[in-house]
Amino acid sequence: MKQIWRSGTQLYPLPAVLVSCGSSVDDSNLITVAWTGTICSDPAMLYISVRPGRHSYEIIKREMEFTVNLTTEAICRATDWCGVRSGRDCDKWKEAGLTPVPGVAVGCPHVAESPLSIECRVKSIVPLGTHHMFIAEVVDVLADEKYMDPQTGAFDMERAGLIAYSHGGYYSLGQKLGKFGFSVQKKK
Amino acid sequence: MKQIWRSGTQLYPLPAVLVSCGSSVDDSNLITVAWTGTICSDPAMLYISVRPGRHSYEIIKREMEFTVNLTTEAICRATDWCGVRSGRDCDKWKEAGLTPVPGVAVGCPHVAESPLSIECRVKSIVPLGTHHMFIAEVVDVLADEKYMDPQTGAFDMERAGLIAYSHGGYYSLGQKLGKFGFSVQKKK
Repeated sequence: MKQIWRSGTQLYPLPAVLVSCGSSVDDSNLITVAWTGTICSDPAMLYISVRPGRHSYEIIKREMEFTVNLTTEAICRATDWCGVRSGRDCDKWKEAGLTPVPGVAVGCPHVAESPLSIECRVKSIVPLGTHHMFIAEVVDVLADEKYMDPQTGAFDMERAGLIAYSHGGYYSLGQKLGKFGFSVQKKK
Repeated sequence: MKQIWRSGTQLYPLPAVLVSCGSSVDDSNLITVAWTGTICSDPAMLYISVRPGRHSYEIIKREMEFTVNLTTEAICRATDWCGVRSGRDCDKWKEAGLTPVPGVAVGCPHVAESPLSIECRVKSIVPLGTHHMFIAEVVDVLADEKYMDPQTGAFDMERAGLIAYSHGGYYSLGQKLGKFGFSVQKKK
């Protein structure tokens, strides 16, 4: 039997990404966002939803660019910290111990400690309520060579230790249960 | 050092949810979706992105309602299966071994085997490219009493065994690394 609850945000697990924004390394900020997801495969598009009161909101609205940096067990504490503090009061990079690297196709820097950084350009801003949704196109993806197999060139995401956010907690990814399509795969 | 890749869908981990749709238990379908996320806290809103060619696309467009059912290790195979098969060719509920339960505020049934079902009403449809985004408001949330602590009434999501989808694989959630805000919490 299921209990009926009133409307709420109960869709989990979600990513908890570090979004970097600004015009350059010296003029940039970080914000942690779980309200993010892929919205289209081709063109590759994603969104982030941000409260208009947040320091990063005005920066992203002005620059119309941002970078989504995937997060790992190693930077879990920094990820949480950038979600509860404001860049109005401090240099988040310095305080959180994260390293800004100049962007490739966008002005804003990305996070050196993130295994995968996704540079994005904003196409539209949709006001919804407490949050406004930035709808963006992926411009390019920056992948840490550390996780690349030198023989095959394959990128081993499992080694990176990505984290998920679920109902108020951060979790490592556990056991691999199957690959996409495993339910219809013929046994060899 | 980071390699520069061309634009692609690399934002992970994501949920892999079973979306149920249709007007009643007898006229309904299931589709698995990873392109989903929370877009606003108040009002509680989420999106799903679906290819227009999919059988469920027309159903959701017609009914302007759907239900997002969270998925677990126990229904991982069914989740994968509903993502690769089409409801045009079979009764997905029956074939996947899932049980439809009449909806509460929407016509479409929800999945009995899911610990948490989120009933949604579509507010707008945004064509983006390969995928169209259904922007929806959460109407209510149905939570399996099995995961409710009879003493405290707290809902224990960890016991449900939620799964995440990351770079082509399904994963259980592993170790809890911290609660939201743990990086600024004072030691007692």
